[in-house]
Parts: sequence; C-alpha cells; structure tokens
Amino acid sequence: MSLLHKHLRIHQIFGANTDVGKTILTTALVRASAARNTPVFYLKPISTGRLDDADDRHVERYGASDLLETHCFYRYDAPASPHLAAWFSLVLTKQQIPGDETVLRSISKYAQRCAARISEQAHLYVETAGGVHSPTLSGTTHADFYRPLFLPTVLVGDPKLGGISSTISSYESLLVRGYIVDAVVLFRDSHYRNWEYLTTYFAERGVHVSAFDPPPPVHPEPSENVRLTHAYYKALVPQNKKDGIFTVADHLDACHKERLAELESMPRRTLDTIWWPFVQHGLVQDERDVTVIDSAYSDYFSTFRPGKEQVPTAGSSSLLVPEFDSSASWWTQTVGHGHPSLTLAAASASGRYGHVMFPKATHLPALKLAERLVHHGPGKGWANRVFFSDNGSTGMEVALKMALRAYTSRHGEVISKSEKKTLGVLGLKGSYHGDTLGAMDACEEVDVYTSEWHNAKGYWFEPPTVGIRDREVVITFPSAIADLVGSDRLLTKSLGWAYDVGSRLRTPLYQTYAMYIRRTLDSLGQRGAPKLAALVLEPLLMGAGGMIFVDPLFQRAMVDVVRGLNPSEQDWSGMPVIFDEVFVGLNRIGMHSCGSLLGVNPDISVNAKVLTGGLVPLAATLASEHIFNAFLSNEKGKALLHGHSYTAHAIGCEVANEALKMIDKLETSRDWQTAKKKWDSGEKDGSVWSFWDPQFVDGISTVKAVEEVMTLGCVLVIKFRDACGGYTSHSAERALAPLRETIDDGRPSPAPGGLPYTIHLRTLGNVAYFMTSLNTAPSLVRSVEQRISELLSGC
Amino acid sequence: MSLLHKHLRIHQIFGANTDVGKTILTTALVRASAARNTPVFYLKPISTGRLDDADDRHVERYGASDLLETHCFYRYDAPASPHLAAWFSLVLTKQQIPGDETVLRSISKYAQRCAARISEQAHLYVETAGGVHSPTLSGTTHADFYRPLFLPTVLVGDPKLGGISSTISSYESLLVRGYIVDAVVLFRDSHYRNWEYLTTYFAERGVHVSAFDPPPPVHPEPSENVRLTHAYYKALVPQNKKDGIFTVADHLDACHKERLAELESMPRRTLDTIWWPFVQHGLVQDERDVTVIDSAYSDYFSTFRPGKEQVPTAGSSSLLVPEFDSSASWWTQTVGHGHPSLTLAAASASGRYGHVMFPKATHLPALKLAERLVHHGPGKGWANRVFFSDNGSTGMEVALKMALRAYTSRHGEVISKSEKKTLGVLGLKGSYHGDTLGAMDACEEVDVYTSEWHNAKGYWFEPPTVGIRDREVVITFPSAIADLVGSDRLLTKSLGWAYDVGSRLRTPLYQTYAMYIRRTLDSLGQRGAPKLAALVLEPLLMGAGGMIFVDPLFQRAMVDVVRGLNPSEQDWSGMPVIFDEVFVGLNRIGMHSCGSLLGVNPDISVNAKVLTGGLVPLAATLASEHIFNAFLSNEKGKALLHGHSYTAHAIGCEVANEALKMIDKLETSRDWQTAKKKWDSGEKDGSVWSFWDPQFVDGISTVKAVEEVMTLGCVLVIKFRDACGGYTSHSAERALAPLRETIDDGRPSPAPGGLPYTIHLRTLGNVAYFMTSLNTAPSLVRSVEQRISELLSGC
Repeated sequence: MSLLHKHLRIHQIFGANTDVGKTILTTALVRASAARNTPVFYLKPISTGRLDDADDRHVERYGASDLLETHCFYRYDAPASPHLAAWFSLVLTKQQIPGDETVLRSISKYAQRCAARISEQAHLYVETAGGVHSPTLSGTTHADFYRPLFLPTVLVGDPKLGGISSTISSYESLLVRGYIVDAVVLFRDSHYRNWEYLTTYFAERGVHVSAFDPPPPVHPEPSENVRLTHAYYKALVPQNKKDGIFTVADHLDACHKERLAELESMPRRTLDTIWWPFVQHGLVQDERDVTVIDSAYSDYFSTFRPGKEQVPTAGSSSLLVPEFDSSASWWTQTVGHGHPSLTLAAASASGRYGHVMFPKATHLPALKLAERLVHHGPGKGWANRVFFSDNGSTGMEVALKMALRAYTSRHGEVISKSEKKTLGVLGLKGSYHGDTLGAMDACEEVDVYTSEWHNAKGYWFEPPTVGIRDREVVITFPSAIADLVGSDRLLTKSLGWAYDVGSRLRTPLYQTYAMYIRRTLDSLGQRGAPKLAALVLEPLLMGAGGMIFVDPLFQRAMVDVVRGLNPSEQDWSGMPVIFDEVFVGLNRIGMHSCGSLLGVNPDISVNAKVLTGGLVPLAATLASEHIFNAFLSNEKGKALLHGHSYTAHAIGCEVANEALKMIDKLETSRDWQTAKKKWDSGEKDGSVWSFWDPQFVDGISTVKAVEEVMTLGCVLVIKFRDACGGYTSHSAERALAPLRETIDDGRPSPAPGGLPYTIHLRTLGNVAYFMTSLNTAPSLVRSVEQRISELLSGC
Repeated sequence: MSLLHKHLRIHQIFGANTDVGKTILTTALVRASAARNTPVFYLKPISTGRLDDADDRHVERYGASDLLETHCFYRYDAPASPHLAAWFSLVLTKQQIPGDETVLRSISKYAQRCAARISEQAHLYVETAGGVHSPTLSGTTHADFYRPLFLPTVLVGDPKLGGISSTISSYESLLVRGYIVDAVVLFRDSHYRNWEYLTTYFAERGVHVSAFDPPPPVHPEPSENVRLTHAYYKALVPQNKKDGIFTVADHLDACHKERLAELESMPRRTLDTIWWPFVQHGLVQDERDVTVIDSAYSDYFSTFRPGKEQVPTAGSSSLLVPEFDSSASWWTQTVGHGHPSLTLAAASASGRYGHVMFPKATHLPALKLAERLVHHGPGKGWANRVFFSDNGSTGMEVALKMALRAYTSRHGEVISKSEKKTLGVLGLKGSYHGDTLGAMDACEEVDVYTSEWHNAKGYWFEPPTVGIRDREVVITFPSAIADLVGSDRLLTKSLGWAYDVGSRLRTPLYQTYAMYIRRTLDSLGQRGAPKLAALVLEPLLMGAGGMIFVDPLFQRAMVDVVRGLNPSEQDWSGMPVIFDEVFVGLNRIGMHSCGSLLGVNPDISVNAKVLTGGLVPLAATLASEHIFNAFLSNEKGKALLHGHSYTAHAIGCEVANEALKMIDKLETSRDWQTAKKKWDSGEKDGSVWSFWDPQFVDGISTVKAVEEVMTLGCVLVIKFRDACGGYTSHSAERALAPLRETIDDGRPSPAPGGLPYTIHLRTLGNVAYFMTSLNTAPSLVRSVEQRISELLSGC
C-alpha cells in the first residue's frame, strides 16, 4: 500500500503524453540530488523502445554517480504502448506477461530495499511509461495501476500544440484517483507558450509549475551531440545548486516534509477539535489512540501510526501501513475504497446537475434508481414508491411516519390525538434503527444508545437466535420460548435447513412461535398497553444491537401474526410491516433482500449503506401503494411533510445506480459461485452462503473462548464467552487485539505491493465481527481467516 | 442554456488532442447526412491556422451540397491555441477578443436559426478547436466554455502513440463536466492499434466506438491529391449508406431519439414511482406538473416542459428551457450548479479515500474542515469541537442531545428519568429545525410539519418582526408586546439601525423585551410547566416557518435572559443556547454567522446547506468545550452515542473545504463590494446588506398587493396581503405565476447563450421568496428584479 518513508522521498513521474520529456526532466531531478550528495534511486519499472534510446540508459549516461542507482524490471524493444509491447514479446519469445500485482510487488520491494540502504535523506524517482492512462503490461491504465502505492506525483506537462489540453486532462485523471500532485514541470516552447497558460492555471489550483528550456535538437555529429547534451544538463542543473531544476527538487523536499509534519500533527489536532461519533472521549488516552487514515484503497486503509516509526516493522519501513478495513467502514463499503467507476459516476452527476431540488421535479439519476429499486431491486413484487432521504436513520423516520399514518388512517376514528403520540411498534430486543430520536423511540430503551428525550414506544420480544457452536448449527431459545418448547435450544441439520423457512413452516415450532406471539399480544391488549401500530424488523440479522442472527422462522411468525395469521395475505391487514434493511440489504448478508427467504414482503422497507457502494450518504424508503394512498388527499397538510435539503441528490443517486450495476455483475462472478458452492448443503433452499470458508467457521466454533460463531454473506461474527457481555464488555477486544499489529510471517501478503498488513478491528462488547466488501479478494479472506485461526488456536 | 430540438439533432465534436482528424471525421458525418438528403449544418465557431488548411474550407471542398451550410464566426491565421491566436490578432490588428458570452450567444443564435429553417430531421455539427481543454479565445478551456450549452458530444480519439491516454483523459474531463458522450470515433493506426484497446475500454463503459481508416498521405501532385481524397471519402461514406461513417450517424440519430423519448416519458414514470418530499401527491394533476430537470448550470436548471414543444416559445425553439433556480435548490446552492471546482474536490476525495469510517480515526478533509469551522468560521471565539452528521435535521438532533445532556449533567441531581423525557426548549413560534422527530419536537405543533409521534416540548414566543412597508423599515410587535409598548409597530430609521443591536441595547425596548421574556418564564415556572433545558433559535431569519425576519434585539434579549441577564456572560449559566444556522449561516443572509451581529455567541450551533456549496449532504454541529465536557466520563454509555454510517464522509468534507475557500474569495469580490455599498446606511454597524437592489426593494414595498417585503444577503421575501395566510395559502403563487413563463421582451437575456429564461418559483403560502447563489451575476439579479417589478406594477 502507500509507500512513505521518513528519509526516502519517493515521487512518481507521470507524463501528460508520451514524448514530453519525462526522462530528461527526471534525469535532471536525479542529477540535482547527486549534485547535492543526496543518494538517489531511479526506477523505470517498465521500458519500451529501442535500447539506445532506452530511458534508463539516458539517465546512466548523463547522471553517472555513485550516489545513483538505476533500475528497470521489464524492458521491451517495441516502441509501442507497454500492453502491446508485452504482447508482441509473448508472441515472439513466449515471454510471459507479468500481472499487475507482480509488478507492484517488485516496485514496493525495490522501495523497501532503497529505504533499508540509506540512513539519511535520499530520493527515489519512479518513472512511468507513456501518458497517465497509457496501458501497462496487463492493460490496466497507469493511473489505475499505480494507485495502490499512492505515491506523490510529478506531472510532466506537454509543451506541444494541444498540450495545454492534454496536461489539464491528465491532471484531472490523476485527481479522480485521489493522487497528490506536487508539481507540474514542462518544457518551454516559445511558439505555443503552454507553460505561460499552465502556470496561471495551476497557480489558481495551488499546484507548483516549473518550466525549462527544451533540449537541443540532435546533432548529426555524435561527439558534438554529447557536448551539447552535457551543456544542456549543466544549464538545467546549474552549479549554484539553487536555480533550474533545483527549484523543483526543493519544492518536492518541502512537500515531503510538510506531509510528514502534517501526519504527525494530525492526532493532536484531531483530539483538539473533533467530536467523534459513538466514542467516549474520556477513554481516549493519547495520540496513539487516533488512527490517521492517509488514504484508502480497495479493502485497506493506509494509516499512519504516530510514534511507531521507530519500531522496526517486519518487512517494511513505510510509515503508512495497510489495514484491512474489517468493518467495511461501518458496513458501507461495497466494492472497495476509491473505485474509479464510483468516482466517475459521482463526478459526472456533479458536473451535469450539482444538486437540484426535488419536490415536483425529476432527474434521471433519481428516477432510474427509484425504478431499479422497485422493479428489479428489494421492492420487486410489492413496492412501487420510493422516498429518498440521507441515511438509514432518516430513512427509518420516514418509514415510521408512513406506517403510523397508514395505521391511523385505517383506524382513525377511534384514535385520539394524544393516543397517536403513544402508539407503539412491535419489534425485537436488540434492534437498532438509527440515532435520530424517532428511530430511537422504535427501539427498546437500554443503557446505551440513549438520550434524555428517548422515549421507547412499543413492545420488543426477546428473539430465538441462530449460531454455530462446536460445529453444530443451533437455535437458542429465550427462556419464555424454552419453557414452551421444553428445551433451551434446537440442534439443526445445517445452516441451509435453519434458513429454509418454507419447509420449517410445517414444523411444530412455527405453531409454538405463532401462539407465543399471539398470546403475548393478547395479554398486552388486556393490560391496556398502548396500541401497536407497526411491526419493525431488521430481518435475519440485528447489527448494532450486537450482531444477533435471529431465527428467521420467528420473524416470519411475527409477520404472519400481525397480518392476521393469514400467511398468504400480503397487505397490512393488521399493522404495517417495516423491514429495516439498512444493514442487511443489497447482498451484505448474501441476498438482495430478505423477503424471499422469509417468504413474506414488507409494506415498507429501508435501504442505505451499500446502496451508494460506500461513498456518500443516501437512503431509500420503499413503500407499497397502500401506504402511499394513506397520504393522498386534497389537503397539503395531510401529505408526508418530510424532506431534507439534499433529498435525492444527483451524486448519491448516480453513485447508487453505478454501485447496483457493479453488484449485478458480481452476482454472477466466479468468486461468488465458488463461495456459494462451498456452502451448498443440498437443502432445497440453498440461499444462505458466506464469503467466509465453512471449514474455518466450523473450526472457530470449537475454540473454547468462543461461545458461538455465525456467518452470512460478508459478515462473520464471533461471540466470546464473557460473564458480563454486552456493549460495554471488552472481551472481544482483549482476545483479538493482536490482529491490530502488523505481522510478517514470511507468507505472501495479499495487500497491494505485498506489504504486511494489519486489521482495523471493531468490536461490540463480547462480539467481534469481520466484514468483507462484496468484491474482497478471496486471498485476503483466506489470509484473515488464517490469522484469526492462529490467534484463537491457543484460547 | 442546453439546446435540444426535436428535429435538429446537434452534436459537438471534441478532440482528444489537436490533429486527430476532427475535421475529416466531422466532414464524413456531414457528407453522410447530405447523402441521405438530410439537411445538415456545420459550424466551426473558432478556427485557427492558415486559410488553405482551414477546416471549414475542407468541409466545403469535399462535402459541397445544397443541403449543407458551413459557418465560422472567428477565424485566425495563427496556427496556435485560440487564446494565443486571438491575442496575436489583438496585438497585430487591434481586433478585439470576444468574451465567452458573446461567442456562446453566436452559437446559440445560429442553432436557433438552423432550427427555424428546417421542418423535418436535420443535423448540426459544432466542431471545437484543439483538445477538450484547449483554451478558447478568452482563455476558458473548451470543456468549460461549451458547458452552458450542454450539447451531446462526439469525442474524436487519438490514434497516435500516447493516444490511448489522451483519449481516456479527455473522456474523463468531459465526464467531470457532466457531458453526454454519445460516441468515440478515431482513426485506425495499424501499428499502435489504439482503437482495439479503446473499443473494449469504452464498451465496458457503455460508450459506442467506431474506427476508420486514416486519410491517405498528401500526394505532391494536386490533382492526384484531390482524386485520392475523394476516393478516401467515398470509402468513409460508402454508397450503400449503411456502413462506414453511417454506423456512427445512425447511432447518433438513435441517441437523439432515445433522449427525446426518455425526456417525454420521465414525467409519467416519475408520477408512477417517486414519492416526493413535502408534496401532496393528491394535488398533482398530471405530467405537466412535473419539472424534468435535464441538467443544471450556474443559477439555472435546464428543464424539459412536457407538452409545451408545440407552443412557439419566443426566441427559442429548444425543448429545454433555462429556469432561474430561484430557491437556490432548497437554499443549498452556493456557487452555481455543476461548478468544476466542487466536482473535482468531490472526485479527488472519492479517489483518495472513498468513505472511511470515522470513530477514533481522522482524515485530512474532515480535520481541515473542523479546524476551519472552529478557528476561522462560525465557531470562532467560542466553539472548539465539531460533530459531523448528514443534514440540518440530524445536526439539530445532535445539538439537542448535547444541550439536554449539558443541562441535566449540570442540574442532574434534581431531575428524574421521566422528567428528562419532558424537558422542553425555549424558542419562537414559526421555527423549524428539520423533519426528524427529535428536531420536530423542538418546534411548536402546528397543522403542517407534523406526524403522529410529534410531541412538541417547550415554549415558543411569538416574535416581533422586521419588514419594509411602503419604503419604511418597520418592527411589528405581536399583541402581547404591543400592549407593553403601547403601539403595534416601531418605525425605524433604516435597516442598518434595526440591525445595530449594540446601540439598540440602550433603548427602552430592550428592557421591555427582557422583562416580558423574564415574566413569561416566571409564570411558566409558577404554572408548573416542564423545565426548559435549552434555548433554540434560528438567528435573524426563520426559514421554513415562513421566512420570518425576527427583530434581532428580541433574540438578543432571549439569550441574555436565559443566561441570567448578564450580557457579558458567554457561558451557559442558565441553559445552553443553540443557534440553528442551517439556513442563515455561511453568508446566506450576508454574514458568516449571526453571533457577532447579535453580540452573543451560542454554546452549540449547526451548519449545513451552504456548507457543501450545494452539492452533497453534510452537517456540522459545533460545540463549546463546556458542552463537550458534559459527556466526558470513563463510561462508554455516557458518551454522545450518535453516529451515521457516512459521518464525516471525505467527499462532503472536501467539497465543504473547497466551497468555503471559494466563499472567502467572493467576500472580497467586486460584486459584493458594490452590493454592500448600495446598502450602506451610514450606521455604525453597516453589517446588513443584500444582493438585491435597495431601490427595487423599496419599490416593491409600495405595491398594494404586497403587505411587506424584506431582504438580507441572498434572500428576498415578498409577503402578500391575504386574509387567510400561512402555509396553505396560495396568494403568492397566484400573484407570481406568470414568472414561470418564458418571456422574450427583446431585452438581452442574462441566461447562457442569451436564451429566454423562466423562473422556477417556490412559495410558502402568502410568502414568495427569491434566493441567489453567493456568486449570481448582477445582470441576472437585475433582470429578475425587472420582471418582478413589471409583474407587480399592476397589483
């Protein structure tokens, strides 16, 4: 991942086009270092073209010095784009084309080796081939290929006619990948004068520009040519060691220093200014508790660890460490951080619309997303309306407003205004629907997630749960149900069986559940408890409440009971049913939505998180036409008077459209097929599966310190034995803390560049969870499994 | 603005570089139209280079036909970038360089003229000069220059070495501006084979690619050259009228048809799927009530008006009409829609981070924004903590949670748990803090903005208000205060005087206000009303409640009273003070924040809307260290347990940083200086001013149908006389409806391309408001003023 060394300043040199002087200007930078007795390394990972023109020879010829080392990994004679040159070579000499990961590892290893060789300030220049989007050997374009290493960049501008355009476009393509562009350098062309325009242009954008005289034309007499070239470099790299290319070198040194200083200052400044969500600042001890995220890519954060640079980290001296984002950034991450497809979707919506106000208006990104959600998404078959808001919590507030109104409009005559305020919801203990007060009031009041105004309204059942204990899939009953069943748990045949709700409807347990639910509701009514107006469920898995996998049959029974015990009834005959799929929806737990597994659809459902692929806030509340009609009237005051300024913002909607398109593709990918096959238990309903390996999961379930383990889709949950569990427990944290440390055990690391990685761990009391994206590489999943297994093997 | 005609298909031709064959391939497209007897127009607005090479001559020579018209507005001999060619010309021949707006008007007029001349399908190709980012005459790059016209685009790819890179980069620069790229066309080069790579690359992105043989080399014998060229074009434009360039022409025709069909279908589809915020769908009659926003730029939406294409709109036959976004897209718009600086800020944060989880972590965009807000922004001098959330409503929920906890932790011993749930806020009637239930509960219960669970907690004063009536600045008292003062209104000297709170503290009115407030609070206490725990104010202007300008002296008195009547006390001695600056903050009403005008700072404040420049949702709740400390503990459960998945998302924070930087620049701009000068009343505190002209405002205040008018900063409010006012009134709507119609009165239009524009009007019952961005062109403001004046002159 990102390479950043205290003493080794690394810059990659990108070109705005081919033949713009990348090698000459890099040579000048290299010679500047050498002239100041600064050790300098020059790496051209891939080189194409005839040998006597080859760029690294050029450097050697004119920059020779014992302070200089030059290197090239892949050299091809063909004067063509690297992907073609490699292909020619494959055809002609059967030379295999190395994969991106192989080349990145070479570069990363080389940088580590350079860093290991020096003890004071040194420089490494990595020169790319062609333009920013020229294809590399594998065909990935350079800008995307180099992104995992996240090196600060010098862009060599194009001095030719048309070069203003290619320089600016190249710069923008680098920005879209998040690169830090420290400088633009280019030749002066006295006719086209691009440097004049570009100096102003980039100054307005805070980017340093330096322009230099172009090299003399090639002289037919070789010795004269050498003399002219020497003279040229002397002018570029003057003896005063101040002007010419030294201005650029000094600027790059300053950028490097500033970046280090900024990273070092960030923890303190953060502790002084930021009020974190869900954090007890009183428990934050010092700067070392702050994770400085310098960038992120794919499934990894690239983090700076204050005060750790002295510790010789095995295998890498980079100050930035790849950390596996094992909570998928609060369960949002879908296709990896910094994915250019999502960035470009965001940028194009921003460029076309910015944000445009939504009431009584429409725009393509919102309309397409709404249609996608109701016709081919979680609303298929039951929903036909989409209400947009900004996050899961607001999406749930909208859902609650919808359900309450639908209920009161149906039972309106008998409900007084003050009674409306006390209407309750039916739900499950451990549920969580967000942190705005309305969403909180739909959850039980517990010690955490509370606030002065929190006033829980409703009744919450303690649910039976599904887990794997000692290789067995077990349904554990709460005491009330255990009394009825005569046992506190049920051993099932397999995970597939446990989630085959259709078949289990015919078991006596279903009748027991239904009777228990009905009886409890009856007794609530008899006791004169406030009316219940909606059933609110996180289907299958309750997240923030402790990663509780609820027995799906119980949730099905709840829906059936509140719908009047008529399983075929899809309308809200009793009270509306809300599915909060903010966490579980859109394949997070291996299925698009949970309705088909449960065999029932909700009247209202909420999606967020994965919806925008892990990029920007957006929520969608889906509703059936029955619900929508409850608000229809000639009176404005009876409308659903809810809205946020950025409702249906074009960026969010367009990013969602792109993310859903990418997920469609993933659904048929080989990785998914492989994972699904592993979990196929032969049951009729083979719809539950996981990205985590079943043998690994079984193995963990036998660990003594582990009470229970469970997995679906991206989610792996390990519940530790702990006398006093719950949110304030620290047992999971204690058991797994070593995962936070970098390990280099000699095994190849799946992280970009093969660098040793750590795990950015999040725990909920005695529960630890690990979460992949929807496209996490199996190699990373296997590697994490191995670490967990090895760590817990002694517990 | 966007040009879209039913019968005239227009495409602009952008080049991935100079000399990539734009003219030849455009010529082929032109000839394809002519070959099919389709009238075709070719426009090269700006042409540089020697005349015998000039691109339009090329088209004439080989595409001559009476179905073809070619045109060029600006021709320069110098073979250089247009900005230099124009500059040479200025130096040599004193030829003035036309401004962007002039050139855009020429193009737009030409397109209108073409459209007027044809009655069936025709084509217009607009060929640009150089690459996508080559500077135009004024120096604006092409991609930005052409953006206001939003023409669908054909990108001519670069077949040369390095051309893959420049083609992809150019494409990305077009995407960043939101352009619709219908096709990429390029020459086949048998050595570099760029077309092969690009065909796959763009196919994956859903973009059509066609490649063609390059032209033959120039033959020394002129007649042979002509023969070869003719033969070449014959192959490009074959006689079967199916292959070659016809495949592109057919594809472009299909794109045009699809776009029209989509625009036509969008209203119906929207009515079938979308549940709008704050809209009574029962009052939506049919498709004509749906505003289809095809794109947006600067202060304008570009909208499609279904069923209106038959109406001969004065001056333009474009199906898309520029509409002034007169509510600044729900008060968010700051620097105009689709601003590339904000897009690039969003893209670079997306590329570098995506979204990364925030608890116990930090990243530069969030940290810089937090520091900016507390050290140099609305928190300066009192706040030192920033808590991020997703919108104004969640920001206010956070603020309320903070205030309630701060209050109870200070008075904790005597407040029971059930009493905590009933704690109230002190506020003003007409206030609005968002639509989540907690934010709603801080507002009075009225007929609108309500929900079953809404349970208003607190006490709300009816406020004295500021308005301009018949050229006089008047403070109007509610009856309770009028009784004390002995008059129902106060005529003031000027707006500057009314807002000079410092001086007015010494007037008897301040004492009256303070006494009235104190007495009311005392009586509430005596009546045993629930305790009040926070003062919650929208300073100066209450937005959604009806654009009510509150007498600032009254708000100051409220703060002073709850702080124990000690005006110098900045700490929350009585109860914490929350400023909801979601709407009024960050210069929306002409000042950065309202504290300095009121002479007091809050303990908590909330910013959103303008914060992200009108692009994406983000809110910041600022707090003083006293408030922060109320949550500090060793117990996790006592923390502020609030958070949203995308808390402090990097895109939002980086866009905010960029927006605030742009606002800093605007603060010293000439437009702002000019506006401020007009409003300078000579009072000591000249801090109130408006983008609207004082004479215009005074004029409107004398209109009979107008009860009151008022303005600050971007906001202009006109309150119409109406027996039954309020949110459900329609008087403003009725009076101003004609503004929705396109007007072409012969006066030059300030809209891009000089096209006639309409006004996208939002009203709140009997109140109409108009809102500019922070950088709206004075020409547009004057034009809107003129329309309003003329419309109301008869009322």
